[in-house]
Amino acid sequence: MHEAVPSLNVVVLRWGHRPRDFRATTHVALTARAFGASGFILADVEDKSIKGNVEKVVAEWGGPFTFEMGIPWKKAVADWRANNGVVVHLTMYGQDIVKTHLISQLRASQRDIMVVVGSQKVPGEFFSEKFSDYNIAIGGQPHSEVAALAVFLDRLFEGSELSKDFKQARVKVLPSQRGKHLVEVGHSSSGS
Amino acid sequence: MHEAVPSLNVVVLRWGHRPRDFRATTHVALTARAFGASGFILADVEDKSIKGNVEKVVAEWGGPFTFEMGIPWKKAVADWRANNGVVVHLTMYGQDIVKTHLISQLRASQRDIMVVVGSQKVPGEFFSEKFSDYNIAIGGQPHSEVAALAVFLDRLFEGSELSKDFKQARVKVLPSQRGKHLVEVGHSSSGS
Repeated sequence: MHEAVPSLNVVVLRWGHRPRDFRATTHVALTARAFGASGFILADVEDKSIKGNVEKVVAEWGGPFTFEMGIPWKKAVADWRANNGVVVHLTMYGQDIVKTHLISQLRASQRDIMVVVGSQKVPGEFFSEKFSDYNIAIGGQPHSEVAALAVFLDRLFEGSELSKDFKQARVKVLPSQRGKHLVEVGHSSSGS
Repeated sequence: MHEAVPSLNVVVLRWGHRPRDFRATTHVALTARAFGASGFILADVEDKSIKGNVEKVVAEWGGPFTFEMGIPWKKAVADWRANNGVVVHLTMYGQDIVKTHLISQLRASQRDIMVVVGSQKVPGEFFSEKFSDYNIAIGGQPHSEVAALAVFLDRLFEGSELSKDFKQARVKVLPSQRGKHLVEVGHSSSGS
């Protein structure tokens, strides 16, 4: 039994990746996938081992989930907006996700959403109308782009993303009170 | 205007930290603080620069928030349980946070909660009754302990943690549609 994830197309763009962010960026990409986004863009730079890690997860646990890298962030954002997509910049300085109705507005608009997550020091341009439609804060405290992304997507999809049925998965978890229980998923069924 | 965070005492224990996890562990600690936990324990090892980073955030953005390190995890867990605290292990193999009523049970019990987050390969002991009261999954997919912790706390505190009023803060954010607006607390000056 799987609840449908509302049919919003969400892609996550990671800005400002440096080699020392290897694990954090991997966490961003895997969180994007696990919380219902359909793809991930590593802007400006390339990192083949992150790509490899994410693609391994997709091959094993299912998709679809796209991974792109090396696209200049300004181009990625401009292309997205040219296709009527909306750009949401997650930042601790943004509007309050709890006290505004931005999430319901986004859900109601049914437009494709690009979620931009950066590091602590993103260029001021990110905040301007030229690049972001919304600047949204998941709490106005310093914490983590991984945490911000997870909570944003959890609220956007109203928790339904946690029951998402991934396609072409080889394995899935059998939720358990104790221990680790994995089941292999048959090709013609969704497992049980 | 700040809504009260339900008065649950939550501490986060990070297991299995290695030097290469520097940024991920820092994210776990800052997420614990920002999402309403009252303290963080770096189990088994010490890392003074993570401690320094977290304490700098507490000095600037407020608390209270405790940071402990080097305590053997078994001792930390045993002490917690001896004081009638409950231990929640967040794991992709655990019970479904959406399809169970574990969160409301935890909230209703009013017991102190230790949230244990590890890395991908935690010892099997973690899953046993000797160490964990609950094994809870934030989606049965591989993603991130930072994401799992954030969503767990967001659901435990029902979003009220995002409006938490931190004590003794020197600065706070003025939520804005555009740009970065910080105010010094008690001095009411704002930049842009």
